[in-house]
Amino acid sequence: MAKETIAGLAKRLGISKASVSYALNGQPGVSEVTRRRVLDLAEELEWYPSSSARALSRSRSGAVGMVLSADPDLIGTEPYYMGLLAGIETALAEGDMALMLRMVGTDPAQERATYERWAGERKVDGVLMFDHLHEDPRPALLDRLGLPFVLHGAPERHGPAPFSGTTTDHAVDSATIVNHLHLRGHRRIAHVSGPHRFLHEEQRIACVRRRAAAHGMAVVTREGNYALAAGHDAVVSLLGEPVEDAVTAVILGNDLMSMGALLALRELGLRCPEDVAIVSWDDSLHCQLASPSVTALSRNPVMQGRVAAELLLSLLDSGTLQTRAMPASDLVARSSTGS
Amino acid sequence: MAKETIAGLAKRLGISKASVSYALNGQPGVSEVTRRRVLDLAEELEWYPSSSARALSRSRSGAVGMVLSADPDLIGTEPYYMGLLAGIETALAEGDMALMLRMVGTDPAQERATYERWAGERKVDGVLMFDHLHEDPRPALLDRLGLPFVLHGAPERHGPAPFSGTTTDHAVDSATIVNHLHLRGHRRIAHVSGPHRFLHEEQRIACVRRRAAAHGMAVVTREGNYALAAGHDAVVSLLGEPVEDAVTAVILGNDLMSMGALLALRELGLRCPEDVAIVSWDDSLHCQLASPSVTALSRNPVMQGRVAAELLLSLLDSGTLQTRAMPASDLVARSSTGS
Repeated sequence: MAKETIAGLAKRLGISKASVSYALNGQPGVSEVTRRRVLDLAEELEWYPSSSARALSRSRSGAVGMVLSADPDLIGTEPYYMGLLAGIETALAEGDMALMLRMVGTDPAQERATYERWAGERKVDGVLMFDHLHEDPRPALLDRLGLPFVLHGAPERHGPAPFSGTTTDHAVDSATIVNHLHLRGHRRIAHVSGPHRFLHEEQRIACVRRRAAAHGMAVVTREGNYALAAGHDAVVSLLGEPVEDAVTAVILGNDLMSMGALLALRELGLRCPEDVAIVSWDDSLHCQLASPSVTALSRNPVMQGRVAAELLLSLLDSGTLQTRAMPASDLVARSSTGS
Repeated sequence: MAKETIAGLAKRLGISKASVSYALNGQPGVSEVTRRRVLDLAEELEWYPSSSARALSRSRSGAVGMVLSADPDLIGTEPYYMGLLAGIETALAEGDMALMLRMVGTDPAQERATYERWAGERKVDGVLMFDHLHEDPRPALLDRLGLPFVLHGAPERHGPAPFSGTTTDHAVDSATIVNHLHLRGHRRIAHVSGPHRFLHEEQRIACVRRRAAAHGMAVVTREGNYALAAGHDAVVSLLGEPVEDAVTAVILGNDLMSMGALLALRELGLRCPEDVAIVSWDDSLHCQLASPSVTALSRNPVMQGRVAAELLLSLLDSGTLQTRAMPASDLVARSSTGS
């Protein structure tokens, strides 16, 4: 990407810096012809304004972009993703915006290339992102590209936010789950999380450990990938062989893994909840209809998607960075924990 | 929309008709400046080329459009939609295309307005459509707008197709279901369909009736909307009061309605399959995990979405209209029919 400045653009076009600035910012004071020349040159040079504030005043594309970097099979079956998408679509429809979806593999280079193309071609006005990573390079990239964004599931912070996002208090949710199990007499529990590269999973693991320790409970962990088979395999690895200090309850990072856990218990001839209790970090129709029905954290992905999209629409309208804390989730107690 | 012709455009711009045609068709023989002038004027006049073939040679937007005109709650929970979307995304990602999603209500005017805007602003290279309606106005509209499209679930035809689409042989699928119930001794069955405005639902109803009649079976029908509550309410209306000639089996138009039917049977104190058997027209994890597990037609929405998207990519590449018949679906026999 050429290193260019407003002064440089002005010189190349033989016009004033003010005219370039007006044109880039969509302000009056410059003819349509000149504005077009400036924007065309900026595009030709792949010159992106350095702040997302400037991008706000570009002519709107009427679309918001979202890159799905996950296994397509998972995306098609995971109720959390689907609820999120439905909430996002609802808010965008009300704001008269379309959603540009791009599925890429789990290679971060593909996600990056998509953002670069969207910015260069002005395909989208802003971006919705999920699953904050360790040392996530995406916020800085999007800033550089001048693409406003909202990160759903941003780390909690005190003080002004460096970008717009939704946050979840994992300590509260973890305490809700662990307290529920402690009250029912469980002293040795397992936590089958999603992938450790996601910051929210690392935070959940730490919070579960901390709360369990406060109760004098032991925790073993397994890393899953949100697919049904991962929940199944984790439970087989935890309970497949009789051991003296076997866990009596398993927390699973989502509803699909919880369904896999139920299937594994059935195969192993273990009763739920009498021998092993199950708690799911996501609720869905699966948890409600399962036999036994599964105790689950009711996270309301439709509401979460709607809030994330509304934050982005408001960022596009006003340029204001905002953080919105998601409300603490209720635990829906069902048969899988003897409730 | 102004009524304009190629000759009219040529006259306004003071250039030859051939130049206008070259410009609109993306062919050589005209300078970039002239091409730009022609395209700008066409856009300004909201002048759309009359054939989709012309649209093929426009500069590509790199995106395919899809309007979801359904209840957002349903879209977020229906596994068939989600599987379709995953299949579409997989094929588009391989073709390096993005998906532009727009959720609208069930008002047809909103869907129409979206297509008009996409065509006018060249937002998408083509469109994927679902749920063929009676006297569906959309194919003619998209032709007029010059937007290539594929209709997933087009009516079966003999002879050349008027547009690209996937077709399903509902007679074969209906026979698979009805034969299965007949073999298990059912003589009075119910069919709870999706909305009658969808052509495929009307065809399924007719095919179920025809096959049942051939076996001397009686059929009663109810119209549902694919939501769990609709399956529940239909079963209550069919079996809530004891009647002499009550149905002994219920076919439900999708998996969510089948789950609702199971809940209703439980409430009514009826056993499945001993008192009433259940068959779902769609399979999913819900049918597999339900208690009892539900016999279902395995329609493979991921494969169907992939094929529909591939047809569109091939239409965009070559301009060839194609119809692709979906393979007949297998019935996965499970406990809900005593299998």
